[in-house]
Amino acid sequence: MKKIGIVMGSDSDLPVLEKAMTTLDKFGVPYEVHVYSAHRTPVEAKEFAQQARANGFGAIIAAAGKAAHLAGAIAANTTLPVIGIPVKSSTLDGLDALLSTVQMPGGIPVATVAIDGAENAALLAIQVLGASDAELAAKLDAARAEAAAKVLEKNKAVEAKYNH
Amino acid sequence: MKKIGIVMGSDSDLPVLEKAMTTLDKFGVPYEVHVYSAHRTPVEAKEFAQQARANGFGAIIAAAGKAAHLAGAIAANTTLPVIGIPVKSSTLDGLDALLSTVQMPGGIPVATVAIDGAENAALLAIQVLGASDAELAAKLDAARAEAAAKVLEKNKAVEAKYNH
Amino acid sequence: MKKIGIVMGSDSDLPVLEKAMTTLDKFGVPYEVHVYSAHRTPVEAKEFAQQARANGFGAIIAAAGKAAHLAGAIAANTTLPVIGIPVKSSTLDGLDALLSTVQMPGGIPVATVAIDGAENAALLAIQVLGASDAELAAKLDAARAEAAAKVLEKNKAVEAKYNH
Amino acid sequence: MKKIGIVMGSDSDLPVLEKAMTTLDKFGVPYEVHVYSAHRTPVEAKEFAQQARANGFGAIIAAAGKAAHLAGAIAANTTLPVIGIPVKSSTLDGLDALLSTVQMPGGIPVATVAIDGAENAALLAIQVLGASDAELAAKLDAARAEAAAKVLEKNKAVEAKYNH
Amino acid sequence: MKKIGIVMGSDSDLPVLEKAMTTLDKFGVPYEVHVYSAHRTPVEAKEFAQQARANGFGAIIAAAGKAAHLAGAIAANTTLPVIGIPVKSSTLDGLDALLSTVQMPGGIPVATVAIDGAENAALLAIQVLGASDAELAAKLDAARAEAAAKVLEKNKAVEAKYNH
Amino acid sequence: MKKIGIVMGSDSDLPVLEKAMTTLDKFGVPYEVHVYSAHRTPVEAKEFAQQARANGFGAIIAAAGKAAHLAGAIAANTTLPVIGIPVKSSTLDGLDALLSTVQMPGGIPVATVAIDGAENAALLAIQVLGASDAELAAKLDAARAEAAAKVLEKNKAVEAKYNH
Amino acid sequence: MKKIGIVMGSDSDLPVLEKAMTTLDKFGVPYEVHVYSAHRTPVEAKEFAQQARANGFGAIIAAAGKAAHLAGAIAANTTLPVIGIPVKSSTLDGLDALLSTVQMPGGIPVATVAIDGAENAALLAIQVLGASDAELAAKLDAARAEAAAKVLEKNKAVEAKYNH
Amino acid sequence: MKKIGIVMGSDSDLPVLEKAMTTLDKFGVPYEVHVYSAHRTPVEAKEFAQQARANGFGAIIAAAGKAAHLAGAIAANTTLPVIGIPVKSSTLDGLDALLSTVQMPGGIPVATVAIDGAENAALLAIQVLGASDAELAAKLDAARAEAAAKVLEKNKAVEAKYNH
Repeated sequence: MKKIGIVMGSDSDLPVLEKAMTTLDKFGVPYEVHVYSAHRTPVEAKEFAQQARANGFGAIIAAAGKAAHLAGAIAANTTLPVIGIPVKSSTLDGLDALLSTVQMPGGIPVATVAIDGAENAALLAIQVLGASDAELAAKLDAARAEAAAKVLEKNKAVEAKYNH
Repeated sequence: MKKIGIVMGSDSDLPVLEKAMTTLDKFGVPYEVHVYSAHRTPVEAKEFAQQARANGFGAIIAAAGKAAHLAGAIAANTTLPVIGIPVKSSTLDGLDALLSTVQMPGGIPVATVAIDGAENAALLAIQVLGASDAELAAKLDAARAEAAAKVLEKNKAVEAKYNH
Repeated sequence: MKKIGIVMGSDSDLPVLEKAMTTLDKFGVPYEVHVYSAHRTPVEAKEFAQQARANGFGAIIAAAGKAAHLAGAIAANTTLPVIGIPVKSSTLDGLDALLSTVQMPGGIPVATVAIDGAENAALLAIQVLGASDAELAAKLDAARAEAAAKVLEKNKAVEAKYNH
Repeated sequence: MKKIGIVMGSDSDLPVLEKAMTTLDKFGVPYEVHVYSAHRTPVEAKEFAQQARANGFGAIIAAAGKAAHLAGAIAANTTLPVIGIPVKSSTLDGLDALLSTVQMPGGIPVATVAIDGAENAALLAIQVLGASDAELAAKLDAARAEAAAKVLEKNKAVEAKYNH
Repeated sequence: MKKIGIVMGSDSDLPVLEKAMTTLDKFGVPYEVHVYSAHRTPVEAKEFAQQARANGFGAIIAAAGKAAHLAGAIAANTTLPVIGIPVKSSTLDGLDALLSTVQMPGGIPVATVAIDGAENAALLAIQVLGASDAELAAKLDAARAEAAAKVLEKNKAVEAKYNH
Repeated sequence: MKKIGIVMGSDSDLPVLEKAMTTLDKFGVPYEVHVYSAHRTPVEAKEFAQQARANGFGAIIAAAGKAAHLAGAIAANTTLPVIGIPVKSSTLDGLDALLSTVQMPGGIPVATVAIDGAENAALLAIQVLGASDAELAAKLDAARAEAAAKVLEKNKAVEAKYNH
Repeated sequence: MKKIGIVMGSDSDLPVLEKAMTTLDKFGVPYEVHVYSAHRTPVEAKEFAQQARANGFGAIIAAAGKAAHLAGAIAANTTLPVIGIPVKSSTLDGLDALLSTVQMPGGIPVATVAIDGAENAALLAIQVLGASDAELAAKLDAARAEAAAKVLEKNKAVEAKYNH
Repeated sequence: MKKIGIVMGSDSDLPVLEKAMTTLDKFGVPYEVHVYSAHRTPVEAKEFAQQARANGFGAIIAAAGKAAHLAGAIAANTTLPVIGIPVKSSTLDGLDALLSTVQMPGGIPVATVAIDGAENAALLAIQVLGASDAELAAKLDAARAEAAAKVLEKNKAVEAKYNH
């Protein structure tokens, strides 16, 4: 199976990204994690992106805060799908990272998820692999059913408590 | 090759989406276009999404404006990658559609591109197919090279005009 | 008397919605509470909405955060008045939920109240029933008078403390 | 049948509100239109609201721009459902009117629709009457079916033009 | 000397408004404090405003949060200068109150100060009285000089600590 | 009678400010107009402010766009009431000028009106003079009555056209 | 004298940047213009930045719209001062470009000017050179005096027209 | 070597600015710190700016919150590069200070860094000096290399912990 690359601009983004790893682990999807800054280690970020397809990656998740250029910088150097996670920092409540990640110019798309949306970034990466992998697709369907079951269970508890 | 689904909430979104079709045509990627509203024809939207994988789709592009629920409604009914295009309408400059599309809750990702970003939505869909299709990946690389060449050509014109 | 439906996208919205229940209890208006997610349990959400009128509901309150599609998804499946409560989550201070709830396209209205405005959602639901129920209308008038009296009582305390 | 009140803060809001009248006309729901400003004619606005229930109104639609207080001022003087339409003016793209209308304090709800959302305001008013009027509810269902049919018709045209 | 009226929509605004009282006390300017809600006690708010000039007030300070209509409701019922303080509440960081207070339509001005800007509201009220009161104007000049002296004193401390 | 000072940062603000002059003319209130930039002619702006009280001014209206510092710069050099008009420019729809004008730090208030709100700025200036001028106060009351009459006249026209 | 580099992400930014060239021409400061995209021609952008100091540049102006990464990408590859111009595009009124340019993470500063603020970008670049060039500093002082004179001239015209 | 001026509007901004001082200390760049308010001590602020070039300064850093006029007021009185730090205060998350600092009108640039971005303000000031100081430029290059090394070290730790 292809691997998922997880790249973050700073190791302070780890608490957000661990939810992505947990999700990938749950689906048995292999991944590699790196700290590469678009601005402080641009060469490493670029080289990782350029060789990602040859190195067996199927999609790359990139997370950064503030003027979040990392996902765009990765996307500029690969034609693999790049998934951007805008990370909330101490000011502006994540709006800066969201706009810096999603408003990419024509030619270089970044598949942006919600602010701090690491679980969905991982699911999206799995969906990319699952587009041509029936087994993975079945796992995704099963996870959906499980999530629905959890909601319905909570529904039952709420109904029991509040409805008479 | 898998097909790309293009769904819009209203045919007033066509001028935006035609850029997606042009891009898919350029790459020789087959697609199907539909007008399904998350709110006015929820059954059709849902059925399209539920049968999309079986019907040979590899990814779905969904475009809507204002409280843009379409991409999320599609994503809730398939585990194919769903790419959301927030469409700018007459108020709030597209911010409402952007937040309604990108801020999805955990479990149901929507790969969001820029407001009115139909070209990038198409490229992202091609990248999804290209993650497991070497020929398509090569075409994507060629398109990148072509785009770079165009920038450099414009650069030459600008340098010739302004630098002495 | 008709019932009020209360639907939330996640049981984490309960602290907000309990203010709605308290208000309905105070007016003796019957209600039913459910956890149905627009995205994780779309079938249950839809079925609840489609049968709500037949099942004796007079209005439905729907609360959700982030890309809050729940109220719109309910409204798409009933012509009962649907009241949307945008719920504040960990980023963007509720603006995402507000725009996702209020900016509905033509044809499918959602009666939106303030972010986290569960008390007002309940009052609005009671007003809907009260539009054709003189007794309930009288209770609403009485509650208004009581609220005014409370303000004036606080006014007296403030006047006593600060004015000389 | 009860009447719907339509109140606007300035006759410059008429182009927006005429869509509400067209909708009410289509459903055969009687209405009355008035220009009352929350700030320039507060007495008339208040008296209209206070006597609305006795005068046979079932719901009131109030539209205003900028620091849009009209819906709140009406709501403060009646316990009928009050539906607020934030109107876009020359600055801030309607955000000021939206927040001024929707962010009502506890006790005095305003059922807010989208910026310039007059059609939905009318539909919401009809839904309020329809909550206890089976004939009107049937008309609302029929209108929904008609709207869905229109979307599907447009879908057919789009499919015919773009899918091969 | 004329009095300053201080009106708040809820006694939860008292912590903000006490800074206004402290400032008025410091200048020896008499004031009266009231809790009147634009929506819950509109009659009292209106009557206070209508009689304010006759009752010896020279300006009115009005503070409210969320869809802050109080200052506008007061201003609609008097031609005394009305000073609005937008109060920050639990969502949207005060932006709703700011826009609801400042974006008044033509004809009914509200002199708006910063979010939670109670000290400046009091100073502005004193400046209004001081526009025709030489003694008060002199006190304002003295307070400015004192404030400047405090800044320069802090400057000295900072210079001593950091400059060598 | 005291004069009103009108200061603008650039003569491109004249179309906005002419509404202020028309209003002052209507009330027979004398005024003086100047173009002084907080940044390009700071000395002139400062000297005008410092001598304004001695020169017979009762209040100063200051209008500027973008990072609108003019009202604050004037306010820093006088204890007369300073009324700020945020002017909309080619980007950000006036939000930059609004926040730059209204969010003044403690000690130096600026009485801010709506974006491009020149009529209200003039009315506020007249209200300041009217706080101690019974004749002017009477004129303000008359203008209010006239404005109300105009609204009611428009109401009549609207009622005649739309109500049957 | 050192040269100023002017880099734009797309030649559609030329109308904005021509104001920068006009300003540099006026001061006799040499410059070079290039079209390099952070995403489409990252190698050229990087190489230009890396060699800029050696090639005789003293500062670099970079302009881009939407998720404007260009200034940051340049800044990541040089320690010359990099001046960022956020360019307004068809959505969000320039806010996306502003936040993407100014909210740079620690270590890699971008000196950001106003949205579309090309004249100020050029002046800032000249000020950087002027920090160690007395002749240029004198020219900057002269330009300031000239700008002030223009304001005062306009002031005279306005005073003549409106003050009597 | 030229000195860097550091000016803050209030000593409450010290915690932000100490990061600037630490950075300047690390590079051995001399600086002077002052507390001058654009509004409370405009004369001192102006005089400092006017004499800064003669007094041996090469650039000035100015930090302020809310309607942050300080950087603009300094810039209006010198042609040295002025670097503005918007400081986050208790409301609006720093957006007010950002817009008040960056949206300067033509003629008077302020080089704006991120909200609370004191480290980058210092680096930018050093880059200004370094534009004509090879030794300082070498130190900047070394610091970049050091920062890159730190990122790569963290990368190693992360790789060791998460990749297997």
